[in-house]
Amino acid sequence: MNNDLDKLFMAEAIKEAKLAYKEREVPVGAVIVIDNKIVARGRNTRIKDNLVTSHAEINAILSLEKELNQRILDNATIYVTLEPCPMCAYAIMESHIKRLVYGTVDPKRGAISTLDIFNKSLGSKVEVCGNIEKEECESLLKEFFKELR
Amino acid sequence: MNNDLDKLFMAEAIKEAKLAYKEREVPVGAVIVIDNKIVARGRNTRIKDNLVTSHAEINAILSLEKELNQRILDNATIYVTLEPCPMCAYAIMESHIKRLVYGTVDPKRGAISTLDIFNKSLGSKVEVCGNIEKEECESLLKEFFKELR
Repeated sequence: MNNDLDKLFMAEAIKEAKLAYKEREVPVGAVIVIDNKIVARGRNTRIKDNLVTSHAEINAILSLEKELNQRILDNATIYVTLEPCPMCAYAIMESHIKRLVYGTVDPKRGAISTLDIFNKSLGSKVEVCGNIEKEECESLLKEFFKELR
Repeated sequence: MNNDLDKLFMAEAIKEAKLAYKEREVPVGAVIVIDNKIVARGRNTRIKDNLVTSHAEINAILSLEKELNQRILDNATIYVTLEPCPMCAYAIMESHIKRLVYGTVDPKRGAISTLDIFNKSLGSKVEVCGNIEKEECESLLKEFFKELR
């Protein structure tokens, strides 16, 4: 995968994050790509849904799994604007998603930053690539939390 | 909470695990208790649903969150027959469930055994109590996997 394609798909995840922002949700967005095509989109809908699992990544994964009636997504790459939490990181592993590309780090809750979760032999191997369009992903979050205060 | 009550509620989680077994799902069951009353039940339905999140704990949590239209379950105790995976452990934290009681350990995938997840300041504090009705929870799983082979 070349970096230009990664940026292009991350831009689509950022669009999802901006939709979440408009809905007054923490602005995190995700897309899932198979064979260079976007096959699912998701954004954080936790406040609207009042459900613990309504993170961007799990929303995207579940929408695709329901559509395909298939739990294993082994040719997929997931793009997400923020480093996944442990719940989403493990869902990515358990869906056998091949590759994770994230925008900015989450030093407090991110499953890579805090647990190094993908190197613990807990499930399937996931390739990880971080800091793609980091500045834009991060500034969306900063702006959101600044407005909130 | 006294140990007799914990055993009583774990017996209810075991009933859920046995239902999963009959459905040819990995036999894991859970119940959620508030004020000494069972308010939600869940069992592993991953094969039936084809969804990555369909673990016993998340099934129980989501059914209660939907019923209450509330994401925070801060007076609750969750009983589960098997040590939670990282996805479920983080969902428990993020639901602010106060206490986790599990049956048997999962040395390969359990979030306590492999990541010590509840001591990593990732979210709300969760009291943890393990090895309640361990033998029965474990033998159900062993029997299931023996039959499978």
